[in-house]
Amino acid sequence: MNSDNAQSIFLRVKNNRKFEFFVVFIIIVSALQIGAKTYELSAVTVSFIRTLDIFITLFFLLEITIRFAAEEQKRLFLNNGWNAFDTLVVVISLIPINDTEMVLLARLVRVFRVLRMISIVPELRILINSLIKALPQLGYVMLLMFIIFYIYAAIGSFLFEDINPVLWGNIAISMLTLFRVMTFEDWTDIQYETMETYPFSWIYYLSFIFLTAFAFLNMVIGILLNVMEQERTNIRQLEATEEPTLADLHKEISELKALIIKGQSLKKTREIP
Amino acid sequence: MNSDNAQSIFLRVKNNRKFEFFVVFIIIVSALQIGAKTYELSAVTVSFIRTLDIFITLFFLLEITIRFAAEEQKRLFLNNGWNAFDTLVVVISLIPINDTEMVLLARLVRVFRVLRMISIVPELRILINSLIKALPQLGYVMLLMFIIFYIYAAIGSFLFEDINPVLWGNIAISMLTLFRVMTFEDWTDIQYETMETYPFSWIYYLSFIFLTAFAFLNMVIGILLNVMEQERTNIRQLEATEEPTLADLHKEISELKALIIKGQSLKKTREIP
Amino acid sequence: MNSDNAQSIFLRVKNNRKFEFFVVFIIIVSALQIGAKTYELSAVTVSFIRTLDIFITLFFLLEITIRFAAEEQKRLFLNNGWNAFDTLVVVISLIPINDTEMVLLARLVRVFRVLRMISIVPELRILINSLIKALPQLGYVMLLMFIIFYIYAAIGSFLFEDINPVLWGNIAISMLTLFRVMTFEDWTDIQYETMETYPFSWIYYLSFIFLTAFAFLNMVIGILLNVMEQERTNIRQLEATEEPTLADLHKEISELKALIIKGQSLKKTREIP
Amino acid sequence: MNSDNAQSIFLRVKNNRKFEFFVVFIIIVSALQIGAKTYELSAVTVSFIRTLDIFITLFFLLEITIRFAAEEQKRLFLNNGWNAFDTLVVVISLIPINDTEMVLLARLVRVFRVLRMISIVPELRILINSLIKALPQLGYVMLLMFIIFYIYAAIGSFLFEDINPVLWGNIAISMLTLFRVMTFEDWTDIQYETMETYPFSWIYYLSFIFLTAFAFLNMVIGILLNVMEQERTNIRQLEATEEPTLADLHKEISELKALIIKGQSLKKTREIP
Repeated sequence: MNSDNAQSIFLRVKNNRKFEFFVVFIIIVSALQIGAKTYELSAVTVSFIRTLDIFITLFFLLEITIRFAAEEQKRLFLNNGWNAFDTLVVVISLIPINDTEMVLLARLVRVFRVLRMISIVPELRILINSLIKALPQLGYVMLLMFIIFYIYAAIGSFLFEDINPVLWGNIAISMLTLFRVMTFEDWTDIQYETMETYPFSWIYYLSFIFLTAFAFLNMVIGILLNVMEQERTNIRQLEATEEPTLADLHKEISELKALIIKGQSLKKTREIP
Repeated sequence: MNSDNAQSIFLRVKNNRKFEFFVVFIIIVSALQIGAKTYELSAVTVSFIRTLDIFITLFFLLEITIRFAAEEQKRLFLNNGWNAFDTLVVVISLIPINDTEMVLLARLVRVFRVLRMISIVPELRILINSLIKALPQLGYVMLLMFIIFYIYAAIGSFLFEDINPVLWGNIAISMLTLFRVMTFEDWTDIQYETMETYPFSWIYYLSFIFLTAFAFLNMVIGILLNVMEQERTNIRQLEATEEPTLADLHKEISELKALIIKGQSLKKTREIP
Repeated sequence: MNSDNAQSIFLRVKNNRKFEFFVVFIIIVSALQIGAKTYELSAVTVSFIRTLDIFITLFFLLEITIRFAAEEQKRLFLNNGWNAFDTLVVVISLIPINDTEMVLLARLVRVFRVLRMISIVPELRILINSLIKALPQLGYVMLLMFIIFYIYAAIGSFLFEDINPVLWGNIAISMLTLFRVMTFEDWTDIQYETMETYPFSWIYYLSFIFLTAFAFLNMVIGILLNVMEQERTNIRQLEATEEPTLADLHKEISELKALIIKGQSLKKTREIP
Repeated sequence: MNSDNAQSIFLRVKNNRKFEFFVVFIIIVSALQIGAKTYELSAVTVSFIRTLDIFITLFFLLEITIRFAAEEQKRLFLNNGWNAFDTLVVVISLIPINDTEMVLLARLVRVFRVLRMISIVPELRILINSLIKALPQLGYVMLLMFIIFYIYAAIGSFLFEDINPVLWGNIAISMLTLFRVMTFEDWTDIQYETMETYPFSWIYYLSFIFLTAFAFLNMVIGILLNVMEQERTNIRQLEATEEPTLADLHKEISELKALIIKGQSLKKTREIP
């Protein structure tokens, strides 16, 4: 009973709008503090930022503790991906760093605190979830894209390695070069270089650009259709509860018919005698 | 009564098509005059342009006065965003400039006179209004975009500052550099430079490009769906008044059924005795 | 009667599929001949190409004469844009060129013979017509685009002229530079140059890119919606003739109701006595 | 009977899921082996890879034999495009290569083994089939695109050949240069160069960019509409079997009407006497 009481208090704190806004505010402060660290700062500011960092770390620890305490089923707390992410970020930033070499890593971990903005603001969480949901649909197009890249990179390595090993040295570097070609970034420089040795190598580049552009276009249209399909299904479900369907009307008319036929047959049987 | 009379006269002047066309004509003249000032001109032309400028300023003052006089509720005149914008542009260009340092500012203010084209031509006003209406829908995607930029800029500043302080000096410069990467503008130069120190920094660039491209795609599809949704709602409302809905038919059939049942039960009660 | 007879013969020639294919074949030959002229050629080939050119010119003259002769109402022949275009191309290539300076112009006119492909192949003509039909819808977005370009070009000229007169010399050059920025072509070079004098000039470039990208996106979505709207109207008209509408059903049910009510009232009147 | 028995055994082997996964696994091994060959390798690894290559070649030979043996109608085996492709790849890689000059070709053929991934994984096969199906729709837009390119390349060759023969030497090179302009790759460098001789040549580039962008946009929208149209037809066919159509309802109501009219006329005839 006592524990239940405590949990409900924590739940009330957690769901308090003022508390939520304060958490968002602290995340923004944390983001600004990270940004400030990229500038040259005076000794006073540096020590102020260090103190601020300790406060933010402690506040995030407190906040995650409240969220944990407010949870009804403590075992399932980490099953929620966002909770697990938040806990990880908080725990890692608690590790004391004395080693100067680790400073860079500590800084990078603190950067991910800004991502907590997404785990806190529900609208951003929905956006990210819908992005993640869209990924598997892209699976096979991505695989196809990868096969195209792989084949072209292998051909590129075999043919052009001697021309420019920096760009075509091995299959991994070639794939990076092909990605560069796909973004049209100085791709003609690469093309003109290989055309000196292989005058027909423009076929290689043009066919690659057409294939990837076509596959990319297909992917975009695929996503678009999927999203529209979902929207349409949602609308239909919404309408289904509001408005009668053709099937409903069909049923009604059938009942009507049965009624009339019954009425007429009744009359007949009565009239015969 | 007298004031009312005057107001209706001004209203007639304001809504006169010839007057409207003359205003558009003066705006075009004003635009050409602004364009002319960017060329090297003879002394005669310069003095002509100065006289023209005084005439345009006075004409715009007259026009805004007529519009104000034509307004029924004078207090609400500035509540209309377009009126407020027009008044501001006219008032600022009335300030006399003796100081040579202010000449540039005076020129810039005069440039915004061209924007009056939008406040005058209704089709452009509708276009701009619909653009502005579309903005809030983008709010959260823009925020997400900003968070992605901020995190990558922070990481970029921490890791690459020593490699090239011009590109990665602080978080603001890094964000500008990342925008450059997003537009694919010589992004491989930046990448090759950091890959010399961090050979795996291509992960940084590729993941950034994929994330922003994906978020951007999502934004475009989002706008598209929103616009289509609006169109569909408009069509439905249009149809609603023209054609009966399924719900209407349902009601009709129900009434029909009730009628038949009533008829049959009436018959029965009458036939029983 | 005689003239009518001749006209019908010409019409038969014109609509003959073999003749049509031969015209397309000659256009392709003409295109290849134009392409061949861009290569260094031997004297024999040059004289062969010259003879071929005379043959093509005469054939096109013959073909347009047949088309004209096949026309029922000779006065309306040039009212058709495609006929007017064909006639113009044929007539201009008939002008004898002795002057060596005119050779370039004569070559350019011959290039437009390739465009006759579009006036001959109906599918291409439909495509072009639909492209032209889509243009007026874009009118106001194009005007808005132009206003944005004009204002930014004026500001650019005033501010950056002293920094780089080659890029920002006058309003026309500035608009060309801005188009370059819109295509993201080495736009950061331009930006970094002006940022040395005006550190905040990145606002100028970023706001311009966002505005034009947004207007462009709007235009694309606008075209898309327009095309979809047309498709939908076409489908609806097709369905209208095939399937009964809800309004039809409504009418039917109303008639049914009237029938039943009449039946019941008839019965009542008969049963009362 | 015996041959039939053998065939059914082969069919069972071919359709065995474990066998399928093993084929996919061998294709992946083959892809990795091709990738490995692009790196500098120790003598031991090279000999290992050579042995692996022989094993893969023999396995693919075995697999295609099983597929052929499992086929009911052996004559139609090569009619299937995927089978023909697989057989070709396997047969070519069987040719022994002693000549060192042929090594490159042998390598290239082995690269196409990776494409077998597409012929094995059904989802990828569907994707490719739908891409190929979409191609003919694009036929006329591609032809139009080609005509635009050809005309601009001819004009470019005539006008700019003396300015830069590397870019505008003949019509083929000019088309490649125009493709570069279409991808916005350093297109302003080309433009500035020709503008020194022909100050108005920006019209050439801008009109080309607008025309191709417009044609490209049209193509994308065309594909999109086609795909959506197909989807809609699919949905309609699906619904047709599930739900009654308006035409069904219409028929039902008509029957109902006939029934009532018959009932009332029956009554009348009976009541008259």
